[in-house]
Amino acid sequence: MEKKIQPKTLPGFMELLPNEQILFNKMKETIKKSYEKYGFLPLNTPIIEDASVLLAKAGGETEKQIYRFNKGENDLALRFDLTVPLSKYVTEYYDKLSFPFKRYQIGKVYRGEKPQRGRYREFYQCDIDTIGDGELSIMNDAEIPAVIYNTFKELGFDDFTICINNRKILNGLFASLGLENKSTEILRIIDKIEKIGKEETKKELLEYCEEKQADTIMKFILIEGNNDNKVQELEKLGIENPVFAEGLEELKQVIKFIEIFGVPDEFYKIDLTIARGLDYYTGTVYETFLNKYKKMGSVCSGGRYDNLTEYYTERKMPGVGISIGLTRLFFQLMDNNIISAEGQSISDALVISMTDNYDMCVEVAAKLRESGINVQVNLENQKIAKKFKYANNLNVKYVFIIGEDEIKNNVVALKNMETGEQQTLKIEEAISLIKS
Amino acid sequence: MEKKIQPKTLPGFMELLPNEQILFNKMKETIKKSYEKYGFLPLNTPIIEDASVLLAKAGGETEKQIYRFNKGENDLALRFDLTVPLSKYVTEYYDKLSFPFKRYQIGKVYRGEKPQRGRYREFYQCDIDTIGDGELSIMNDAEIPAVIYNTFKELGFDDFTICINNRKILNGLFASLGLENKSTEILRIIDKIEKIGKEETKKELLEYCEEKQADTIMKFILIEGNNDNKVQELEKLGIENPVFAEGLEELKQVIKFIEIFGVPDEFYKIDLTIARGLDYYTGTVYETFLNKYKKMGSVCSGGRYDNLTEYYTERKMPGVGISIGLTRLFFQLMDNNIISAEGQSISDALVISMTDNYDMCVEVAAKLRESGINVQVNLENQKIAKKFKYANNLNVKYVFIIGEDEIKNNVVALKNMETGEQQTLKIEEAISLIKS
Repeated sequence: MEKKIQPKTLPGFMELLPNEQILFNKMKETIKKSYEKYGFLPLNTPIIEDASVLLAKAGGETEKQIYRFNKGENDLALRFDLTVPLSKYVTEYYDKLSFPFKRYQIGKVYRGEKPQRGRYREFYQCDIDTIGDGELSIMNDAEIPAVIYNTFKELGFDDFTICINNRKILNGLFASLGLENKSTEILRIIDKIEKIGKEETKKELLEYCEEKQADTIMKFILIEGNNDNKVQELEKLGIENPVFAEGLEELKQVIKFIEIFGVPDEFYKIDLTIARGLDYYTGTVYETFLNKYKKMGSVCSGGRYDNLTEYYTERKMPGVGISIGLTRLFFQLMDNNIISAEGQSISDALVISMTDNYDMCVEVAAKLRESGINVQVNLENQKIAKKFKYANNLNVKYVFIIGEDEIKNNVVALKNMETGEQQTLKIEEAISLIKS
Repeated sequence: MEKKIQPKTLPGFMELLPNEQILFNKMKETIKKSYEKYGFLPLNTPIIEDASVLLAKAGGETEKQIYRFNKGENDLALRFDLTVPLSKYVTEYYDKLSFPFKRYQIGKVYRGEKPQRGRYREFYQCDIDTIGDGELSIMNDAEIPAVIYNTFKELGFDDFTICINNRKILNGLFASLGLENKSTEILRIIDKIEKIGKEETKKELLEYCEEKQADTIMKFILIEGNNDNKVQELEKLGIENPVFAEGLEELKQVIKFIEIFGVPDEFYKIDLTIARGLDYYTGTVYETFLNKYKKMGSVCSGGRYDNLTEYYTERKMPGVGISIGLTRLFFQLMDNNIISAEGQSISDALVISMTDNYDMCVEVAAKLRESGINVQVNLENQKIAKKFKYANNLNVKYVFIIGEDEIKNNVVALKNMETGEQQTLKIEEAISLIKS
């Protein structure tokens, strides 16, 4: 006997059961529809690219994690995000695109991280970006939170907060204090304040700056109140730095337009402690938290960047965008029992036969499909109990039962699997009932 | 000045412009919906698998074409079809699945072929398969053409033919003639008959068999008439071989049920010359041709196989399925001007401002979206002509123009870009008009 190969899926690769996949696909579809509602155009770039193109900018972690290999003489790599491919795309097809260019892409990306619970090596990113040719109005930075709001509402969430900040405010503050060279360290400390508390934060700050500087930073990050209050307090700080002033002005514009874009007050707030890494974003930055599940971390992040395409062209292409890491989000939501794949189905009905004659079963299924109803017909010679078990596993709401009487009288027995109720109907009546 | 990297997409990788991508996505969505209508469940397996799993069966071309590489200590490969991953999946999750297991998968697969016009190294396959546990009713073989019919109708085609054959008929015929060892060569000759003609076919056959054998084969492949005639003629051949008899009986069942499944006569036919390769399919086989574009080759093919999972388990899992190579199909349809991406759009409208005040633009866009209308709002400080050009490039049907008068009177100027007609309306009136 031949030796069999062990069929195993690699660690770090999500593979779902059908009911879970149905739920996952619904979420993906919801995100897609929300992105399209705001006019973002679909793109679908290759998963494999020339390694030199993908690694134009990369370094550090990215280089270590990337899947890179040779095929013939080609040095290839799998994309590790959707931003670098966008950057390539915008440069390559510049002449054929209209700017501002708004695109979404929902696709798998690859990072050879250490596999661990909830961390995947293959995962979906769902990105939108608005790219300007030379310049891009700050109002676009206010549209992004509107898309986040609409998307998460459509996904069924009603208690989340989009946190907004502007990197220029942080950079300007540090510059005004003469601390621009220590911004990395300071931001890392600031980022921990919720965990370590005010006192410890100040103590750690003092390792990098003077008492007076630390006081200003503490005063800055402890600014409270609603968005208007925060803006007023920022103005009161009296920081005379052009970058700071620019950032504050941008933030004011963003906050003004978010409201006009229709995002209710309680879904967004200025959060002066978020920074989103250091070398990429240059203006507005976003993080989004499910308020009851803050431990999950930000479920949708992004921001404004000065130049998307700097590694490929001299042309300046500013942009603003966000990403939802859907695979990780799905895992976390399932893991926290916030969503459940139980009862998920793509079929409305299953048709089963009580006899050896399947003709009418197939006819009924064909009629149901013509009426737009998703239906499966069981064509196997199985015991009735097994057929009903099958219906249960499929999570269909209705089972059509075709026996001798039904064939003779040209009717169907329709069983509602949720209520257990069964009735004999003409096929047209059954269709109306299901569609109603 | 830094050296710039040339942003180039690899040869053999399809990358579309947004309007093309919109059209491609519509086709993909249509196929998905059609598959779901018949109760096929979605799967989404990883693109990367352990090389030993993917190559359990492979050999020859597959091994040469596969993208295979190491990451750390792992020997990995990219899937080259969706059947091997299905085979793995069904074995791995056997205990959690219900049989017959009907699944669809629409995803990218990878083959490092020589790039040539219309041949891609990364391409979408859109597969359905019905897998039985131990056995699987022949009626499933009749459902598959119903899915093909529905799918291509929904894709907008109305002149195509699903060609159906049964490998057992061919195998039985060859066995009855004592030619089972020459079946490969004979099938290759049969396959060419449309190109080379009857005489040349017979001449080539004679290189492998006796005059009398060649006559029987010629008589067989030249059987004409409608499906019933063909079945009768096959019976009249008087071939006494149990495999032939089994194949003929299966074919009769399939033809009978295709009709009950609702596929009109003119969309399918028995074609005794199709065989679909030699080592995989064991019963029913399908090919589908667009009648006006036969040169494109089969646009949807597949068949019945005895055992999906033989490399992974002792359990016997027969199945039947088909695949649409969407990337290649899309290329061919575009290339033959059968489809066009011109005018494709995801947005119904664009909102533009005639002034520096964008508040009302953003408000109007928000209201349109609340009504379910996809809309983009132009937020850039551009000349009016440029904004209209942008609208044209987006292929939106409507442009909302917001100027001083509109702001003062709280109305919108709505321009129909197809007719050029422009009217001043209340926002609610404009929404009704677009939605009607």
